[in-house]
Amino acid sequence: MAMRMKLKLKTVFVLYFMVSLLGLVYALMQLGQRCDCTEHDMAKDRTISRLRGELHRLQEQMRKSEATKQPQKQPAMPSLSTIFVITPTYARLVQKAELTRLLQTFLHVPQLHWIVVEDSPHKTQLITDLLFKSGLTYTHLHMPTAKDRKLQEGDPSWLKPRGVEQRNEGLRWLRENRRAQPGGDSQQGVVYFADDDNTYSLQIFEEMRSTQRVSVWPVGLVGGMKYERPVVEGGKVVRFHTGWRPSRPFPMDMAGFAVSLKLVLDNPEACFDGEAPIGFLESSFLQGLVTMDELEPKADNCSKVLVWHTRTEKPKMKREEALQAQGLGSDPAVEV
Amino acid sequence: MAMRMKLKLKTVFVLYFMVSLLGLVYALMQLGQRCDCTEHDMAKDRTISRLRGELHRLQEQMRKSEATKQPQKQPAMPSLSTIFVITPTYARLVQKAELTRLLQTFLHVPQLHWIVVEDSPHKTQLITDLLFKSGLTYTHLHMPTAKDRKLQEGDPSWLKPRGVEQRNEGLRWLRENRRAQPGGDSQQGVVYFADDDNTYSLQIFEEMRSTQRVSVWPVGLVGGMKYERPVVEGGKVVRFHTGWRPSRPFPMDMAGFAVSLKLVLDNPEACFDGEAPIGFLESSFLQGLVTMDELEPKADNCSKVLVWHTRTEKPKMKREEALQAQGLGSDPAVEV
Repeated sequence: MAMRMKLKLKTVFVLYFMVSLLGLVYALMQLGQRCDCTEHDMAKDRTISRLRGELHRLQEQMRKSEATKQPQKQPAMPSLSTIFVITPTYARLVQKAELTRLLQTFLHVPQLHWIVVEDSPHKTQLITDLLFKSGLTYTHLHMPTAKDRKLQEGDPSWLKPRGVEQRNEGLRWLRENRRAQPGGDSQQGVVYFADDDNTYSLQIFEEMRSTQRVSVWPVGLVGGMKYERPVVEGGKVVRFHTGWRPSRPFPMDMAGFAVSLKLVLDNPEACFDGEAPIGFLESSFLQGLVTMDELEPKADNCSKVLVWHTRTEKPKMKREEALQAQGLGSDPAVEV
Repeated sequence: MAMRMKLKLKTVFVLYFMVSLLGLVYALMQLGQRCDCTEHDMAKDRTISRLRGELHRLQEQMRKSEATKQPQKQPAMPSLSTIFVITPTYARLVQKAELTRLLQTFLHVPQLHWIVVEDSPHKTQLITDLLFKSGLTYTHLHMPTAKDRKLQEGDPSWLKPRGVEQRNEGLRWLRENRRAQPGGDSQQGVVYFADDDNTYSLQIFEEMRSTQRVSVWPVGLVGGMKYERPVVEGGKVVRFHTGWRPSRPFPMDMAGFAVSLKLVLDNPEACFDGEAPIGFLESSFLQGLVTMDELEPKADNCSKVLVWHTRTEKPKMKREEALQAQGLGSDPAVEV
């Protein structure tokens, strides 16, 4: 009887031991999982980028099926590199309008992370609200330009380069937040500098996504030219089509290249030199990263213009000032 | 011996039971405690549901267009009024860039039909290709401006109104193609005049979609002002905040109103008068359609700026011309 009881107890004990061990293991796993929003976010980010990808794919499909009247087979989406877009911006009358249309472009691009760097001693409410409502994955930074480097009222826009400290702040953030994590592919990504007044086709983002080191393409309406572009022969960039000092190391506009995140992380000192002579800002950053020979031409061997250096007129405020003098100006509480 | 073993086993069992119970309870508590990322989540959730909506819409649209093989006729969402956007456009260096970012905005708007009217004696290849690849539902028209009405090189832009014949051509097309069909609700729709250089928030389209007769809202950065807007009291427009001749019948910019399709169809003679004095073009169209009292204020009683009268600088081509003189100009075969 005692023997039987012992046996029974042993069985129960072993069974219970196994069940409860599972519970303990689970509890330990829970302990190991830090409670932060990052992981939580990542799932949503993945959902968002998956949805964007699908949307983009569907739009492409529609376009194609309209052309061919034959729905095409869809290749499975490989995991997409994140495009980190660094946009320096500063307060002015057209700022909200510019960023509004820019973000509408970015909303079409799967797996895009917008790094907006305000030229300001603090984050402004306007940009905070705009980003929050944007529906984009974003990082909001600020970095005021040193006073002696700032353009003064009436200065021609080419006198001092704009956005230098802000782009560098974007790079700093990337280096701090996307540095190599053991076993992770956190370095998979592309860095692009997109000013808030340019015009970007959606295709340019798909072109740059496969950047290995530094990819390049034409930029329309820049430097007093219809376009500037790298000239490609035998798949290599051999010189540059530009209207001014083609002998510069990289006579390209900021909008004409993208850099792999890995290259940015592997070269922690590479940044934009605000003291560089006019027209040498892009070179100051690229010089330490790449040689002309290594540039990867995109946009059909640099034969297509997919980004334009558009500039928006500064709005005249003559009537506003006249009305303000009479106390009848526009309500300052209305955000423009 | 067996008894002692049984006792010992019992003690071990009870001890182990208690310890493991604690583990289980902890695991259960962990299960109950979810990371609190609610606030953070909300924006992402909104994005996800917006994307899902768009995806759904697109899938619907594809399904229907596959069924009918007539992409232009399918009302993807019968409950939504179609917004017919009439955009006059003319050939210039920034044309493709402007239309590119404009169409990226429109791609976000459900049930939008873009009527592009070129100021040209024929449809150009550039616009034909751009529209074909756009992914939008569109109609491509052209109508050259009479020579004596055309702005000449060097004329100030306000001297003669631009886009008059093109907007009227858009109206003509609507009247010919969307007139009452027996039993159909083809008259359900809204007509909006969107120039190709302005900036449009996505919200403005949802504001205008419910237009009964004529809806109105503020326009930013127009007429030398931070904004112009109808002034609303008790839900009615009572006057206009404008920097110039507030006594005009409708002192509003083209971007500041939308008209129901029904009203356009019911008033077949209403059009823009190219001979109207400067600043009276909008009035020439609206005068026969509506009274100030009937205007429907949108954008939170005209307190929000959701559209901006941005203007793009004409790019300088000095270096291009210098290089062309040497036979080294940009390749004219490259579309910009």
